[in-house]
Amino acid sequence: MAGTSGVESTKPLLRALAGERLDRPPWWLMRQAGRYLPEYREVRAKAGDFVTLCLTPELAAEVTLQPIRRFGMDAAILFSDILLVPRALGQRLSFENDGPKLEPVSDSASLGVGDMAMLEPVAEAVRRVCTGLPDRTALIGFAGAPWTVATYMVEGGTSRDFHRVKTWAYRDPDGFAALIERIESVTREFLSLQIEAGVEVVQLFDSWAGVLSPAGFERWVIAPTRRLVTALKARFPRVPIIGFPRGAGLLYERYVVETGVDAVSLDTAVPSDFAHERLQSLVAVQGNLDPILLLVGTDAMRRAVEELRASLGSGPYVFNLGHGILPETPPEHVAELARILAEPLHRS
Amino acid sequence: MAGTSGVESTKPLLRALAGERLDRPPWWLMRQAGRYLPEYREVRAKAGDFVTLCLTPELAAEVTLQPIRRFGMDAAILFSDILLVPRALGQRLSFENDGPKLEPVSDSASLGVGDMAMLEPVAEAVRRVCTGLPDRTALIGFAGAPWTVATYMVEGGTSRDFHRVKTWAYRDPDGFAALIERIESVTREFLSLQIEAGVEVVQLFDSWAGVLSPAGFERWVIAPTRRLVTALKARFPRVPIIGFPRGAGLLYERYVVETGVDAVSLDTAVPSDFAHERLQSLVAVQGNLDPILLLVGTDAMRRAVEELRASLGSGPYVFNLGHGILPETPPEHVAELARILAEPLHRS
Repeated sequence: MAGTSGVESTKPLLRALAGERLDRPPWWLMRQAGRYLPEYREVRAKAGDFVTLCLTPELAAEVTLQPIRRFGMDAAILFSDILLVPRALGQRLSFENDGPKLEPVSDSASLGVGDMAMLEPVAEAVRRVCTGLPDRTALIGFAGAPWTVATYMVEGGTSRDFHRVKTWAYRDPDGFAALIERIESVTREFLSLQIEAGVEVVQLFDSWAGVLSPAGFERWVIAPTRRLVTALKARFPRVPIIGFPRGAGLLYERYVVETGVDAVSLDTAVPSDFAHERLQSLVAVQGNLDPILLLVGTDAMRRAVEELRASLGSGPYVFNLGHGILPETPPEHVAELARILAEPLHRS
Repeated sequence: MAGTSGVESTKPLLRALAGERLDRPPWWLMRQAGRYLPEYREVRAKAGDFVTLCLTPELAAEVTLQPIRRFGMDAAILFSDILLVPRALGQRLSFENDGPKLEPVSDSASLGVGDMAMLEPVAEAVRRVCTGLPDRTALIGFAGAPWTVATYMVEGGTSRDFHRVKTWAYRDPDGFAALIERIESVTREFLSLQIEAGVEVVQLFDSWAGVLSPAGFERWVIAPTRRLVTALKARFPRVPIIGFPRGAGLLYERYVVETGVDAVSLDTAVPSDFAHERLQSLVAVQGNLDPILLLVGTDAMRRAVEELRASLGSGPYVFNLGHGILPETPPEHVAELARILAEPLHRS
């Protein structure tokens, strides 16, 4: 594994991402700063709208730190949103009850080149989080991968069948490639800005990677991710990159081999035996408890957590969910999860 | 392959499903009878609501035959709906613009044991289709697989995160198993009724197989499917069964090996090389053109069709889509597809 040599950090997350097997695997949860926490809902109400919350450094830093104070995860993930990139490209963005709304684009020429000043408050939020974080806790920055960001930009929000964006990609692949490259370029600068401000790890969320055909996956998921990884590695060779091609299924392995990510986040459907045998020999893996189990709690959750740790804990492993935490999750279940994960893993 | 010996039918679909490689692979399209056809929309308007259309034998038979008359597919698939089973179990069912609506169930004891008389019109529709079908065209019956039917019954319709149904399955696996078994039992009788009336092949649609964890997939997808396949094979040993665990990804192979299906339908994301190397040595495969490509047409469609035929046509193969045809699809694109598929496949 590329990152194994020269490990000097003692933060557990960074050790695992560098390829080390830990007796007590580090953990964090996707969307750990969010609606399931009453203290989050309070700040959210104060901020008014969601974009304001993301772009007010004091508030974004505060909600980033909330779950760490309560549960002591091994990593904080910056409170932000993947759709700040389309906004920086000039697209109007709002959040309604049923999710994000954008004015759909059908031509990349209608977009700007990316107003980085608009993203500057995110850097300030990173700096504030850094001063408030315990020594052993790592800070993760993130962005949407270009394909997933493009789906929102073209569909105008979440989608059921990805009709518009896929039609564009098939009908006019060169025009669509221009859109992808524009997103890619702002994403590269956005992640660079986060790293320069202090994040130690970045994650690329490709939430809709699973809806493409294999040829589409190669062109719109793997290729842009590889270019981003290459560019970021050239600038920041020691910052690990976690890829999350959700729903990639049979293409997970190809994604890992071809993109050059340091770690891969697994969705709920990925079997542990596959992840252990085929992926963990290449990179660190992260995941993949079903978020519904965190909501349900009980012995069902404990058993599933123990099974995951038993199978994936024998290699470089970061415990996480297979998808974001659900807003209905009782915080006590997260506390219980923290207790389970604090127990040392028995060596096999 | 189990079905290879004793092939006497000359219908191309049955030959392919029995394991034969054909120079010109047979084809049909999921949802081939449907809204993209003006003649369908006419009958639909006459029927009034969707359930009436399914349960009026004359009309259901008519729309089943429409695509065969226009395009000459190698198979007709009975016009019906997977939610007739919950209806036979006593659940109220209606179709609104945004999809099916049911009164959510939370206890299988609230359901009946299955009113088979309610499904009798489907048998009559099958008999009518049989008399109108060309000699070389096979007739496919179908049902939803128990897991997928359960998702609609518990969620009350389509769902985004399958929160309710998965919560039930985790919290009360025995109670949920009782629901699955009740669905399974009616499904077995429903498919038997279709076969006795004349369908020659059945397909089990497990459209939401991909949202489960590997353990859930084993218990709620594979196990009920295996029991259904076993029961149907005991009664109708010569009727091939096609399984469609949409989104199964890394679990496609396990599904094929463990359920005993004769053929497997592949969703859009399944790579041909995997399907050829790992699945086609076990069963016939069916699929998996992206339905968006049929909507887009052009050379992009032709190239993708030719690639699929070149890779999967070297084994037992049924051409199909990876998901249902989209209502916005121009019928001329289906006609063009029929022309492409009529060209003989060059042997490699």
